[in-house]
Amino acid sequence: MMSHTSPDLMTVLGDLSAKVDARLNQLLPPTTNAPAELHEAMRYSALAPGKRLRPALVLLASQAVQGNEQAALDAGCALEMIHAFSLIHDDLPALDNDDLRRGVPTCHIKFGEAVALLAGDALFALAFEVLAELPLPAAQVVEILKVTAKCVGSQGLVGGETIDILSEGKPVSKETLDQIHIRKTAALIAAACEIGALTTTPPDGGVGERQRTGGAVVISDQPNSSRATLRTYGESIGLAFQIADDVLNETATAEQLGKAVGSDRERGKATYPALYGLEESKAKALELAAQAAELVQTFPNAETLQAVAQYSVLRLN
Amino acid sequence: MMSHTSPDLMTVLGDLSAKVDARLNQLLPPTTNAPAELHEAMRYSALAPGKRLRPALVLLASQAVQGNEQAALDAGCALEMIHAFSLIHDDLPALDNDDLRRGVPTCHIKFGEAVALLAGDALFALAFEVLAELPLPAAQVVEILKVTAKCVGSQGLVGGETIDILSEGKPVSKETLDQIHIRKTAALIAAACEIGALTTTPPDGGVGERQRTGGAVVISDQPNSSRATLRTYGESIGLAFQIADDVLNETATAEQLGKAVGSDRERGKATYPALYGLEESKAKALELAAQAAELVQTFPNAETLQAVAQYSVLRLN
Repeated sequence: MMSHTSPDLMTVLGDLSAKVDARLNQLLPPTTNAPAELHEAMRYSALAPGKRLRPALVLLASQAVQGNEQAALDAGCALEMIHAFSLIHDDLPALDNDDLRRGVPTCHIKFGEAVALLAGDALFALAFEVLAELPLPAAQVVEILKVTAKCVGSQGLVGGETIDILSEGKPVSKETLDQIHIRKTAALIAAACEIGALTTTPPDGGVGERQRTGGAVVISDQPNSSRATLRTYGESIGLAFQIADDVLNETATAEQLGKAVGSDRERGKATYPALYGLEESKAKALELAAQAAELVQTFPNAETLQAVAQYSVLRLN
Repeated sequence: MMSHTSPDLMTVLGDLSAKVDARLNQLLPPTTNAPAELHEAMRYSALAPGKRLRPALVLLASQAVQGNEQAALDAGCALEMIHAFSLIHDDLPALDNDDLRRGVPTCHIKFGEAVALLAGDALFALAFEVLAELPLPAAQVVEILKVTAKCVGSQGLVGGETIDILSEGKPVSKETLDQIHIRKTAALIAAACEIGALTTTPPDGGVGERQRTGGAVVISDQPNSSRATLRTYGESIGLAFQIADDVLNETATAEQLGKAVGSDRERGKATYPALYGLEESKAKALELAAQAAELVQTFPNAETLQAVAQYSVLRLN
């Protein structure tokens, strides 16, 4: 079912990530603007070394539906800002109290707690500003804003982080662990794929979901089914990535992780290996990646999307 | 120039505030949804006793242009959520470290720092979700989202709070003080008035600002000029409110304030009385309120808008 990992996936992701960083650099306020410290902190966190997985997925999902590349690039940058906002807040002493992130000092270690907290807030606001300016028909922009706001709120990212924090040091059921991982990680990755699918304009100018009821023409159902398919693909690889991260937090070296090994366990965090064991966790991640790869086989860039699915669990092999 | 304070302004504001609280209660997630603690904290802060000035201004500005009342109510609730988000984060120990707000314990005193920080984030996200669902043409919704995102970001609320925090205990110029007050307080109040003006659909389906260049028809300029006028009105009363608050922080009793008297001064915060003296501060606030009142005299609900301008400085008399 799953194609072999494309030998040049790293080239593809590297090219996308370079485009994203160049655009992020333009979209983030310059440090010559006041307040300079705030803009330095925003840039420090949003431009920190990273895979830029979420923007890459917006761009790849957009390619899958022949979407508007400029809109996909900007939407991807907005999601990267939201990702950076959530990492800054999660790292604060009141939450995870982490000093290192991706191998470098976290935002509050570098800029102090006050500026870090506010830089997170400002990145969140900037993300919505960028999304509201997307070069797409207004109905598509509104739909993208809905998907984004939902995936961040109390039913998404922030809700997942809350359950995670409140569960520390307590026995956690498998259902609760799934809720944490789906909301904290998979929600934003699924949104990235769904938003990529929304960067194309359906034939009647509608927005996918509304077409099912109105559509007498068969082709008008296509954007909707692409949207749902790419969303499910994103949910699966998002969860696969998070399970793989949990496994690596136990098995990798500190150098590979950019932070202390087993730090989740020491903090009493619920993890897949703690509840399912290492082997079952690995099997679950591999199964999710395989399901994701199967979903996207009819898209024009199926090989790349399938390679990303494989990449989500590559480090486990 | 300024009409006498309408004797029933308190009745008008009371009625609007009751409508807003009823709608906020519907829009906020129930505490029966997980995570319950997060939803309790969101509701505690967003429904805490308060004037609901921002939603009231959205509704009054919407009435001024015969806008859509349901859209104005929901947009007002979204701005109240953003106001609550900014108060929760400002009160945190890393920023202002306040234990009391509106006479009751602040969110982090009641729910702990982790949940308070996340409740602020979740209210911010929910505000954008509510705005994206507004019952207005998509082009108007996008315009409202742009105005909102800009007024919160590093050039608005969050930027103002950053300059405020970084200026504590340092000599501050009058220009810097204006920047703090304009961004921290006036930006969101100006946005409330501008958004109210955007709840009406212009004759050609456009969004105000774009009409100036395209409009051969004279009437199509009307929404644009209302939008700009109501925004300027909001900026003036926003700044008047903040200066009045600075003055009251020095002269009122703790019971009137719901917090300690002179707390801003003790913290080394820049305030109008500290830079201009009490008398000049009062005069500046009264002048701004008079300017605001003059601006709105041609609107159908001019008397109410003018009464709100007077109310912004009423406590100074």
